[in-house]
Amino acid sequence: MGVTAAVAGASGYGGGELLRLLLGHPDIEIGILAANTSAGLPVTDVHPNLPDLEGRVFADTQALVESKADLIFLALPHGQSGAVAAALPQGVRVVDLGADHRLADPAAWARAYGGEHAGSWTYGMPELPGARARIAASTRIAAPGCYPTASSLALAPVLAAGLVEPRDLTVVAASGTSGAGRSAKVNLLGSEVMADLTAYKVGTHQHRPEIAQALSGVAGVPVSLSFTPVLAPLPRGILATCSGRALPGVDAEVVHEALRAAYAGEPFVRVLRPGRWPRAAATLGGNAVHVQGTYDAESGRVIVVSALDNLGKGAAGQALQCANLMLGLPETTGLTAQGIAP
Amino acid sequence: MGVTAAVAGASGYGGGELLRLLLGHPDIEIGILAANTSAGLPVTDVHPNLPDLEGRVFADTQALVESKADLIFLALPHGQSGAVAAALPQGVRVVDLGADHRLADPAAWARAYGGEHAGSWTYGMPELPGARARIAASTRIAAPGCYPTASSLALAPVLAAGLVEPRDLTVVAASGTSGAGRSAKVNLLGSEVMADLTAYKVGTHQHRPEIAQALSGVAGVPVSLSFTPVLAPLPRGILATCSGRALPGVDAEVVHEALRAAYAGEPFVRVLRPGRWPRAAATLGGNAVHVQGTYDAESGRVIVVSALDNLGKGAAGQALQCANLMLGLPETTGLTAQGIAP
Amino acid sequence: MGVTAAVAGASGYGGGELLRLLLGHPDIEIGILAANTSAGLPVTDVHPNLPDLEGRVFADTQALVESKADLIFLALPHGQSGAVAAALPQGVRVVDLGADHRLADPAAWARAYGGEHAGSWTYGMPELPGARARIAASTRIAAPGCYPTASSLALAPVLAAGLVEPRDLTVVAASGTSGAGRSAKVNLLGSEVMADLTAYKVGTHQHRPEIAQALSGVAGVPVSLSFTPVLAPLPRGILATCSGRALPGVDAEVVHEALRAAYAGEPFVRVLRPGRWPRAAATLGGNAVHVQGTYDAESGRVIVVSALDNLGKGAAGQALQCANLMLGLPETTGLTAQGIAP
Amino acid sequence: MGVTAAVAGASGYGGGELLRLLLGHPDIEIGILAANTSAGLPVTDVHPNLPDLEGRVFADTQALVESKADLIFLALPHGQSGAVAAALPQGVRVVDLGADHRLADPAAWARAYGGEHAGSWTYGMPELPGARARIAASTRIAAPGCYPTASSLALAPVLAAGLVEPRDLTVVAASGTSGAGRSAKVNLLGSEVMADLTAYKVGTHQHRPEIAQALSGVAGVPVSLSFTPVLAPLPRGILATCSGRALPGVDAEVVHEALRAAYAGEPFVRVLRPGRWPRAAATLGGNAVHVQGTYDAESGRVIVVSALDNLGKGAAGQALQCANLMLGLPETTGLTAQGIAP
Repeated sequence: MGVTAAVAGASGYGGGELLRLLLGHPDIEIGILAANTSAGLPVTDVHPNLPDLEGRVFADTQALVESKADLIFLALPHGQSGAVAAALPQGVRVVDLGADHRLADPAAWARAYGGEHAGSWTYGMPELPGARARIAASTRIAAPGCYPTASSLALAPVLAAGLVEPRDLTVVAASGTSGAGRSAKVNLLGSEVMADLTAYKVGTHQHRPEIAQALSGVAGVPVSLSFTPVLAPLPRGILATCSGRALPGVDAEVVHEALRAAYAGEPFVRVLRPGRWPRAAATLGGNAVHVQGTYDAESGRVIVVSALDNLGKGAAGQALQCANLMLGLPETTGLTAQGIAP
Repeated sequence: MGVTAAVAGASGYGGGELLRLLLGHPDIEIGILAANTSAGLPVTDVHPNLPDLEGRVFADTQALVESKADLIFLALPHGQSGAVAAALPQGVRVVDLGADHRLADPAAWARAYGGEHAGSWTYGMPELPGARARIAASTRIAAPGCYPTASSLALAPVLAAGLVEPRDLTVVAASGTSGAGRSAKVNLLGSEVMADLTAYKVGTHQHRPEIAQALSGVAGVPVSLSFTPVLAPLPRGILATCSGRALPGVDAEVVHEALRAAYAGEPFVRVLRPGRWPRAAATLGGNAVHVQGTYDAESGRVIVVSALDNLGKGAAGQALQCANLMLGLPETTGLTAQGIAP
Repeated sequence: MGVTAAVAGASGYGGGELLRLLLGHPDIEIGILAANTSAGLPVTDVHPNLPDLEGRVFADTQALVESKADLIFLALPHGQSGAVAAALPQGVRVVDLGADHRLADPAAWARAYGGEHAGSWTYGMPELPGARARIAASTRIAAPGCYPTASSLALAPVLAAGLVEPRDLTVVAASGTSGAGRSAKVNLLGSEVMADLTAYKVGTHQHRPEIAQALSGVAGVPVSLSFTPVLAPLPRGILATCSGRALPGVDAEVVHEALRAAYAGEPFVRVLRPGRWPRAAATLGGNAVHVQGTYDAESGRVIVVSALDNLGKGAAGQALQCANLMLGLPETTGLTAQGIAP
Repeated sequence: MGVTAAVAGASGYGGGELLRLLLGHPDIEIGILAANTSAGLPVTDVHPNLPDLEGRVFADTQALVESKADLIFLALPHGQSGAVAAALPQGVRVVDLGADHRLADPAAWARAYGGEHAGSWTYGMPELPGARARIAASTRIAAPGCYPTASSLALAPVLAAGLVEPRDLTVVAASGTSGAGRSAKVNLLGSEVMADLTAYKVGTHQHRPEIAQALSGVAGVPVSLSFTPVLAPLPRGILATCSGRALPGVDAEVVHEALRAAYAGEPFVRVLRPGRWPRAAATLGGNAVHVQGTYDAESGRVIVVSALDNLGKGAAGQALQCANLMLGLPETTGLTAQGIAP
């Protein structure tokens, strides 16, 4: 239908996954692919999994700014989207997969990321209450991070339903390594990560304020949470174990029902049958989030576990879902809830 | 368009991948899903990655035999397809992902698998010389195994072009664990395989006669080859390192050109640019085979390396590719050459 | 020095690791190796990593009962140690790596495991307050499970020091697959687990009462905790993320100091320098536990993370450490705090 | 007994494994640990698996040159050992884990590595015919590479026994990622390698001339071989599938017997029982090589498969084995043939 999409940061993992999805999208053509440090390289040198891009070469970001794309995806490291976005024409639709425009509070942004705040855009998590319409009406979308998507979609229903206290939420989320990006670092070498599990940035991860913002919006009051990310030996996938102090009258059935009610009709959030718990592997390559919850009487906590593909629903899939909404296309166009297994 | 496909052995890994592909196929509806030992179970209990099959339940194979499907896929352990196939109506199109109907020579079948030969069907590797038309004209297709696909597509062009001797071919092929199936065996436990590499069935693997048959057909004379399979710690993917004794006048450019000529226009076999070697990870979830070759002057051998997804082009993808041909659909319908990475 | 040790359940993962350690122990000779379902098999068929046991054959458990071993290790599935233990002579020293004798409360045992309680033995975690002397004075030791070791050693110091409330403790512990044992199950196949993260037995895992018992002993009052185990794609290793509600006056330095004070002089528990968090990979093959903690002001929680090798300090290493104490040997004999990396 | 060993390149994977082994060696004390780019860093920041080195700090290589160590291990990238070695006193014993002094032929060295040849030292593979005595009599040892150890120990016995032709040998060897070292490269990121198998440097790998040199020495005539390395998703371990054209009269029993005769009494090379094939996982953390061979009648090839730990017998273990021989210690001191499994 004539929509051309350009991508900045197309050589990274989020950018690469987006290219794969765009290749399968019936209504979007792939325009300029920008990647500053890889500018001039064949795209298939970086993404040999995308042979249909044989012949394409990465451009630099300036070329993207000057292009006439209808839709631009920014898949840049945090701190870099702001300047690029500022140079883009008003009318073009933009989805930022990075962090720069996610936080409404400049002070929170400065604490989490340092530097100047680039401003706040519509937060692109369609399954949060009221979000879908806001996204459809926007031309600038800040697509959420992978940990916030897993954590927020797990806890939002039990907060919204008043099943847990808004303070003392806990999230321990194990993530595959692609969440850490494609830059060469010793601690991300295969030799280091393959037989390892490690906690990192305990209590200081930059995604905590984003989770708190999303959940505070749902709860109607500020929430507090501890957030512990764990690096796990798989390329893709997040499993988030979330909990909150149960309020009186909660039991397992109530928790399960709150999840089911919240996500009835959602194409990409699937509440599993009672007794079955999410598996990251079941979401590989797709845009699905799997969730399950229960009430733990011994500790008095509601526990909700979610799984997703950090590059899918946690990044590129969600960005495309938002783009579909902005373009007035069916939300699921070019996306699937099916994962690749085993 | 009204084609309904049923699947026998739908609870296995090959069957599961086929279901995923069929869910994305625009012209095929999913009919009966049979799985004897899992009959009665919800499909999503076995394949939680396929939430769109929520509500579907496995039937037994008898139900499949009695169904009115237009197309039947048999994804059964070897030795089981023959009986099921014999019970099916003449007119229905059948693709067997198993080994039962692959070998033309009953004696070879008996040596490799034991038991009685179920007969020989059209061999379903469209990229072999002359195969595409034979497949389109058949109602019974024996889809090749994963190792034979990787090995044959690597060596066929250099044999056909007369670049290597037909005897003393060698194949060392490392495979992910899903090739060994979904049955509970101690030697396939994650704890056993995750940090391991092991050779098995050295010189005795049942896929050797199938490779020899395919390559002998191409060479026009009987070939001989050594075949060593290696179990490697990844769920999916095969990397086959193949070689043959070079005939006079061969050099790297000649080898590369033979590969390019053989696969020009093929949608799913991609010859990489010189200097780039196949990666199994680049084929994950897709139907592509990546190949590259060279001439090694020191040993006097032509070396060709291929990579594919053993459940994709090595099983379900290839079966669907054949089905498309049988149905008169574009060969690539519901299939992709793109892989999921990282 | 003439101590002969026999092992029941020597074909399992815990048993196998114990054999490896015993082969390197200067004061213990390896006696009867019993393994009921593998009785008659060469030991190296099951444990090809132990070539120095070439020529040894598994016996059955009856042979072990009748042997004259000075020391017996029981590495059996839960529910099987009780009967074997009852048949052993009074004088022989016994270390049970299984769960049968860990819980003091028969009702708790019945709820967690079902069946009849085999009785309670001295709990073999030498680093808990007062435990070392009790172990040295015992002839029957119940060696703790892998999750309880990781969880208890993380939380005991902050409970003992009065830094956290005894209720509403949380543990999310990711474990390698060997913790699930060596029996053939589809959900433990390499194909299933290799790219997966999954929560299981949420709120119902049989190790929770054991953790609660150990921590209640330390706290002096009953504790309550939620416990969520996560299966992660590595053969060995546990990373436990533990937390409790901080009491007034707690800060990061206080937490760190409590850990350091608790484990000063301990050969196998290492408190990392501030800023460094435990990695499971750093403990592979050794008997070390790495711990680190902090205070998270936003949530008001103390967070302590621990890592260990579930077959080392989480099973066989700890059992041998206890045996050393029972035998009056230096506690570290035949054990190491060093891990294999990468 | 007063031997102090210093290590250059102690921050790498080979250096780190050597430190682990030296910590367990009863007759060697650890002296200066040099690591130029990590000089000044705590050793446990780089090797958190070695807590007993808490308090030690990396020095620079100049400090090592000036130290009074009795024994020096060089674990440096190729091209760097020569200069360091030239600065060391004559009397000190030196084992080079790198490639600089392995090749006798300067032209071969220049072709494989470029730059000037640093000279040729005694080749440190004790199990090759005549090598043990040469090593014991030397003060300068070039410890072999990981691929050459696996390949040479597989093929040497069948060449020495005249079972295969010396030309047209083939080796396809899959290796874990630690063989590629600890420098930060995108292609070695966990995200890239974890679900991948890839061939690289096909026909051009720098280890081929080293294998050819070792095997030509055994065969008494120049050998020719093709060598294809494959990067596999495990941190450690090599599985080498090697073959040669069988000479008349060879059968499986003859092959097996040649292996057994060659390695009878060897503490670290284990010929498996017929029917059992080597597993890389069975050698993890140890100094063992497992080998098995057969005759493949269809192709007329002898096939020998070997497995080892590339950082153990393929690097640090072998270096220490040579050091023991040089020092007149029992060859197995501080080493083990047992591996860590699973």
